[in-house]
Amino acid sequence: MAPREQKGGGGDPEADIEAPLISSGSSFLFQDAACEEDGEGDEEAEQRRNRRRLLNGSLRQSNVTSQVALVGTDVCRIESLDYELIENDVFKQDWRARDRAHILRYFALKWALCFLVGALTAAAAFVANLGVENVAGAKFVVTSNLMLARRFESAFTVFLVSNFVLTMFATVLTVYVSPAAAGSGIPEVKAYLNGVDAPNIFSLKTLVVKVVGCIAAVSASLHVGKAGPLVHTGACIASILGQGGSHKYHMTCKWLRYFKNDRDRRDLVTCGSGAGIAGAFRAPVAGVLFALETVSSRWRSALLWRAFFTTAMVAVVLRALIDICKTGRCGLFGKGGLIMFDVTSGYINYHVVDLPPVITLGVLGGVLGSLYNFFLDRVLRFYNLINEKGQTYKLLLAATVTICTSCCLFGLPWLATCKPCPTGGEEACPSIGRSGNFKKFQCAMNEYNDLASLFFNTNDDTIRNLYSAGTDHEFHLSSIILFFMASYFLGIFSYGLALPSGLFVPLILTGAAYGRLVGMLIGSQSTLDHGLFAVLGSAALLGGSMRMTVSVCVVILELTNNLLMLPLVMLVLIISKTVADAFNANVYDLLVNLKGFPFLEGHAEPYMRQLSVSDVVTGPLQTFNGLEKVGRIVDVLKTTGHNGFPVVDEPPFSDIPLLYGLVLRAHLLVLLRKKDFISSCTASALDASKHFSPDDFAKRGSGKHDRIEDIELTADEMEMFVDLHPFTNTSPYTVVETMSLAKALILFREVGLRHLLVLPKSSKRAPVVGILTRHDFMPEHVLGLHPYLIKSRWKKVRFGKSAFTNFF
Amino acid sequence: MAPREQKGGGGDPEADIEAPLISSGSSFLFQDAACEEDGEGDEEAEQRRNRRRLLNGSLRQSNVTSQVALVGTDVCRIESLDYELIENDVFKQDWRARDRAHILRYFALKWALCFLVGALTAAAAFVANLGVENVAGAKFVVTSNLMLARRFESAFTVFLVSNFVLTMFATVLTVYVSPAAAGSGIPEVKAYLNGVDAPNIFSLKTLVVKVVGCIAAVSASLHVGKAGPLVHTGACIASILGQGGSHKYHMTCKWLRYFKNDRDRRDLVTCGSGAGIAGAFRAPVAGVLFALETVSSRWRSALLWRAFFTTAMVAVVLRALIDICKTGRCGLFGKGGLIMFDVTSGYINYHVVDLPPVITLGVLGGVLGSLYNFFLDRVLRFYNLINEKGQTYKLLLAATVTICTSCCLFGLPWLATCKPCPTGGEEACPSIGRSGNFKKFQCAMNEYNDLASLFFNTNDDTIRNLYSAGTDHEFHLSSIILFFMASYFLGIFSYGLALPSGLFVPLILTGAAYGRLVGMLIGSQSTLDHGLFAVLGSAALLGGSMRMTVSVCVVILELTNNLLMLPLVMLVLIISKTVADAFNANVYDLLVNLKGFPFLEGHAEPYMRQLSVSDVVTGPLQTFNGLEKVGRIVDVLKTTGHNGFPVVDEPPFSDIPLLYGLVLRAHLLVLLRKKDFISSCTASALDASKHFSPDDFAKRGSGKHDRIEDIELTADEMEMFVDLHPFTNTSPYTVVETMSLAKALILFREVGLRHLLVLPKSSKRAPVVGILTRHDFMPEHVLGLHPYLIKSRWKKVRFGKSAFTNFF
Repeated sequence: MAPREQKGGGGDPEADIEAPLISSGSSFLFQDAACEEDGEGDEEAEQRRNRRRLLNGSLRQSNVTSQVALVGTDVCRIESLDYELIENDVFKQDWRARDRAHILRYFALKWALCFLVGALTAAAAFVANLGVENVAGAKFVVTSNLMLARRFESAFTVFLVSNFVLTMFATVLTVYVSPAAAGSGIPEVKAYLNGVDAPNIFSLKTLVVKVVGCIAAVSASLHVGKAGPLVHTGACIASILGQGGSHKYHMTCKWLRYFKNDRDRRDLVTCGSGAGIAGAFRAPVAGVLFALETVSSRWRSALLWRAFFTTAMVAVVLRALIDICKTGRCGLFGKGGLIMFDVTSGYINYHVVDLPPVITLGVLGGVLGSLYNFFLDRVLRFYNLINEKGQTYKLLLAATVTICTSCCLFGLPWLATCKPCPTGGEEACPSIGRSGNFKKFQCAMNEYNDLASLFFNTNDDTIRNLYSAGTDHEFHLSSIILFFMASYFLGIFSYGLALPSGLFVPLILTGAAYGRLVGMLIGSQSTLDHGLFAVLGSAALLGGSMRMTVSVCVVILELTNNLLMLPLVMLVLIISKTVADAFNANVYDLLVNLKGFPFLEGHAEPYMRQLSVSDVVTGPLQTFNGLEKVGRIVDVLKTTGHNGFPVVDEPPFSDIPLLYGLVLRAHLLVLLRKKDFISSCTASALDASKHFSPDDFAKRGSGKHDRIEDIELTADEMEMFVDLHPFTNTSPYTVVETMSLAKALILFREVGLRHLLVLPKSSKRAPVVGILTRHDFMPEHVLGLHPYLIKSRWKKVRFGKSAFTNFF
Repeated sequence: MAPREQKGGGGDPEADIEAPLISSGSSFLFQDAACEEDGEGDEEAEQRRNRRRLLNGSLRQSNVTSQVALVGTDVCRIESLDYELIENDVFKQDWRARDRAHILRYFALKWALCFLVGALTAAAAFVANLGVENVAGAKFVVTSNLMLARRFESAFTVFLVSNFVLTMFATVLTVYVSPAAAGSGIPEVKAYLNGVDAPNIFSLKTLVVKVVGCIAAVSASLHVGKAGPLVHTGACIASILGQGGSHKYHMTCKWLRYFKNDRDRRDLVTCGSGAGIAGAFRAPVAGVLFALETVSSRWRSALLWRAFFTTAMVAVVLRALIDICKTGRCGLFGKGGLIMFDVTSGYINYHVVDLPPVITLGVLGGVLGSLYNFFLDRVLRFYNLINEKGQTYKLLLAATVTICTSCCLFGLPWLATCKPCPTGGEEACPSIGRSGNFKKFQCAMNEYNDLASLFFNTNDDTIRNLYSAGTDHEFHLSSIILFFMASYFLGIFSYGLALPSGLFVPLILTGAAYGRLVGMLIGSQSTLDHGLFAVLGSAALLGGSMRMTVSVCVVILELTNNLLMLPLVMLVLIISKTVADAFNANVYDLLVNLKGFPFLEGHAEPYMRQLSVSDVVTGPLQTFNGLEKVGRIVDVLKTTGHNGFPVVDEPPFSDIPLLYGLVLRAHLLVLLRKKDFISSCTASALDASKHFSPDDFAKRGSGKHDRIEDIELTADEMEMFVDLHPFTNTSPYTVVETMSLAKALILFREVGLRHLLVLPKSSKRAPVVGILTRHDFMPEHVLGLHPYLIKSRWKKVRFGKSAFTNFF
């Protein structure tokens, strides 16, 4: 029985993350914030090649898939998170040393953090709304006044230039300051909660760019929403608070050491993402459900309660802030933005005769929603090809889209015929100022342009117009058709730009137009109001694209403040989701896939039942002795990218080789930096762990690493030894090599592991034969090793993956 | 290396379940439906002793804790469920044989079952409401008419006798037909979803008794609710449908074989319990959240979508049924029962000045709620001492409580002074018939008795009265105080009777009175309506007793149909839950504990980090050879109660002993019954699994077992061999014996295991050293083995367990 003998198929390099991308030079290892270094010759070219491969799918076949992903608009190296409790001696001593006061402080901090996350997210949501209402409001006031004076060319110029400047501002900020802030951020948050970390997704820079960029992008009348960016904002706030401020800007708090691990950070980020939706829609219950249904991969019932507390704080703080604004101190922020769309109140009655149009609405909504996903996917792939050419191209793309959008918004209303103002309405007609249903636009006095009241408005106001009850005759059929078509495609073409942009509001808006359209076309038999049709249309399109059921349902209810619609909304959602699931996956899964995140699904693929874990572990395994030579550790760390190494006690320290546990790269680096070495290879009498405080081993913020290259060691030190025992996790999770891959995946995902040790079946072999990481469970990796499975019907049986994902 | 050598601390009997209770006779094993056999000399005495021990806590110290529990009112043997996929050859062949049509049928069935669960639960909820409204309605009409005629004695007699008869009917039904139907059933459902099965909790008999008994109990004016029993009803319906009907009554469906396992059944039962709440309150979203927050121990996002579908079906079917009733074909069922309490509609405004009374309401609600739990716990312990004396005592107890209740309800209104009818009200005053706010009772014409409108009504109508807005002056302070006190204690004393009874409605009712009381006492500065205070009071008491946040919040919103109250309701809930958590655990945890279910908590106790799994595995381990003699299998099955046995390949079949997998008792019994033996101890050339269909191994319904005693084998057969390989699960989950107990618990619970194999650290020993089961993780067991931990501060640090459960 040779000590480090590795028979059979075992032995896996924990090569999931920082292993070299394509080049094998070790100098390429551990470069943080890889995606920021745009503009350095070789690397940029390398990145570009990776990105192209990623997008063309060729990277998916090679073994590096799970090491890079599109974060925002740039390809970055990503890293696995570790939700396992590292039970080594240092941890246990720390645990034993925690007395009642420590524990109470931990709890108090936990709740204080939740409160802060809620309050700050509410503040961010408020700032975003205030900004949009004021910037966009000022723009509309100026253009409307010019229109009233019939100076149409000047109005168009002002509209176009202000939109252009705002869009460019958002894009430049995103491209040059924080590319990770592009897009909605929900796919990144979802990947983070699944266990994939990327540099800078939760940095202070990203937070600022996200909020400011979002205000600029939405004010620029682009067809993008605030909800997605606010989810990312909430998650950012949570993560930054959890690590006690930003390390980079030396704003940290020493108190928070108990939160410096991936488990506590995950909980906070989950609460933060819920707070984002709660802030975006003033819908606290929907926020909790959104976090639960859409972004999180694991859920504990204790978390429900904390997420609820967080979103309740959002609601309370938002209400207080809005109360302050009621005195008129918030500029143009008045009845827009955050004010709920409680416009369809009053008793709603519905009958069997209403069912056919509602069911049709659901079915078509499902089709339109899945088409939306399909088009979005195509457009994003195309945009990525442009974006990867360089920063200038990103700016050009954004410029093109904003100019087209402005032309659409200003040009299309001219197609509408003017309608005479209704008599006896409460509202001023034509409306003066920025809000109101009756935009005058080019019409004569006492007439209004119905299309302008849709196009020439902030998205929130347009939704309110469409949702409003008793307005069945305010809109022409042709206007609604035109608006629906324009809104559908503007939404698709606006999402992929290099600026913060959400999908929620465009979908709600397009859905509202779609609902009114259906109501106009086939709702004549029905007793339902067209405003109600608009609400149901939003539900149908959200259900068809995002496939969230419970949270969308509650969002709609909280937005419209009418619970009597519940059965209808549920019906529409169920129909549209079911129809859409037959075609493709939900939009967030598509985005996560497109971005190349190694997402661990909750269920195992059928072919995984055919394989045992020994079929997928590959490569030579690096293990350390309980007492290891410093030189060897340095050597191994420099030549491999692995993050965990089994520690094996070998003769003469034990009779036979015995698995002692697993030691992490991060912990080894701490040991090497402290240089607490022993001179001879004998069991040390001293407890080495006493020289370390648990703070030394605390996990730093997202994407921050020590690097082996930064540690200088003399030749003498390289010959010394280090006792790894006190720093080794003695309770790693293990599977036997004959375990089926499907069941190992369940263990890996449910417990939230980064490393899963593979033990030999026969006791004659080395005590550990490999390590499974996230990478080893990726379908690309598994099917790459066993290509025959691609052809077997175990793969093909997965027709309509999305449908099956949900059915299982 | 001797084959079955068991060194060290390993080796655990999987003694969790069917092992003898106290007697060690093997004849005592595997008696199904043990709790039904009331009235047989020895066993009854044994049961009584067990129960006493269970209740006095002495059983908790001994090793049999996790084998018996109070189900309904009787002590029953319980059993672990197994959510692991048993990957043996039979399963794999079955899996391989499933083609597209099979998979589609499986999906179609899954959704069809959800639809049926929803529709049938809605029907059950409707029947329950219809029954209560008609039975209780008839009773109130008769008594009210007698009161109008001033024949007070006759009215009292009718009231008392009808209540008595109804209560006795419910109790006799429960005691003699299905004792498992007693109580709310939520603790049983919660335990089931945590992995503890009990005989008869989901039988057809229980279902019928639950619905009928619930109608009788609620109609008897007992202070019990319909919601809890409906949750149990929904779970029953789901379980019965999932096993394809009732085996006992030969109503089964062959189609459902894919659902005959604990995983699919768990999903269905989860949906069913959500449907129960959805049906009870016509609150579909709250139903989903209740299932998620309160009853389920594990949750997958796919389940959210199915639960949502189920509760949506409940809402749709209920609406259709109520529409049918609108034509007046449902007797007295009119505006009562299921009709939502949408009485506080209209715009609600609140200001800073409202905060002090609302916060006080929350704090006091928390205190009252935890006191409620405390009293309930004491009263239940006392009741259990009475109940265990025999069936007659159960009847006597119920009789006593119903007589006292009737006297209270009829007697207390006499203390109130008559109030003159308000002028200009829309409602008739005094109200004639059964509903309405203005009961005349003993008063003169044009006067009403405010206390009678609370006491002398169905619970649902009383809640509506208390919630109604604009009624600030309808009630005397003294009436509300009296009603609150009576309601609080009647609720506590009514729950433990041997009949179906829920806790929800009494808490809502008491809370409503409490809220009005607070509003009257300190709400004078506030602008809030007393009806709104009543709603908030319900939230406060529910939050204080049940500690559910999100689901209670949504229940309240869906009941009152007013989303504008959301921030206030959230605030009250958060305060009351936080306050109450400082005192004791939530009411369901208390009940689960009191009933003695071996509930696996989601978090590990601190002292578990100090122990490794080898510290808790006990007793000799029984393993089988890959080719085992029939006689030995029979012998082991007869002498032990274990449910899983490791299969080890030993020389000469392999070089050294190798762990092959785990075989289940249930599967061994199938093998023995089929008698597919081989004559010699050589590897069989034939694939034995071909003689079996997967149906043979399907798990039967709750609490149904084969028994080893029923299998007759000849002496020749006993000398033959059986090849266990095709029937052995080759992918059991394993841990190394040095694994910390806390981390093993996380694996055990997250993956939903019944057996967890313990592997040796050193390869010199036997390939498996023990099995961990649910029993081994129970604090009683662990602390029994290591009593010094009780005194260590690892135990003590758990002050206020409930608080910590939630904080972690």
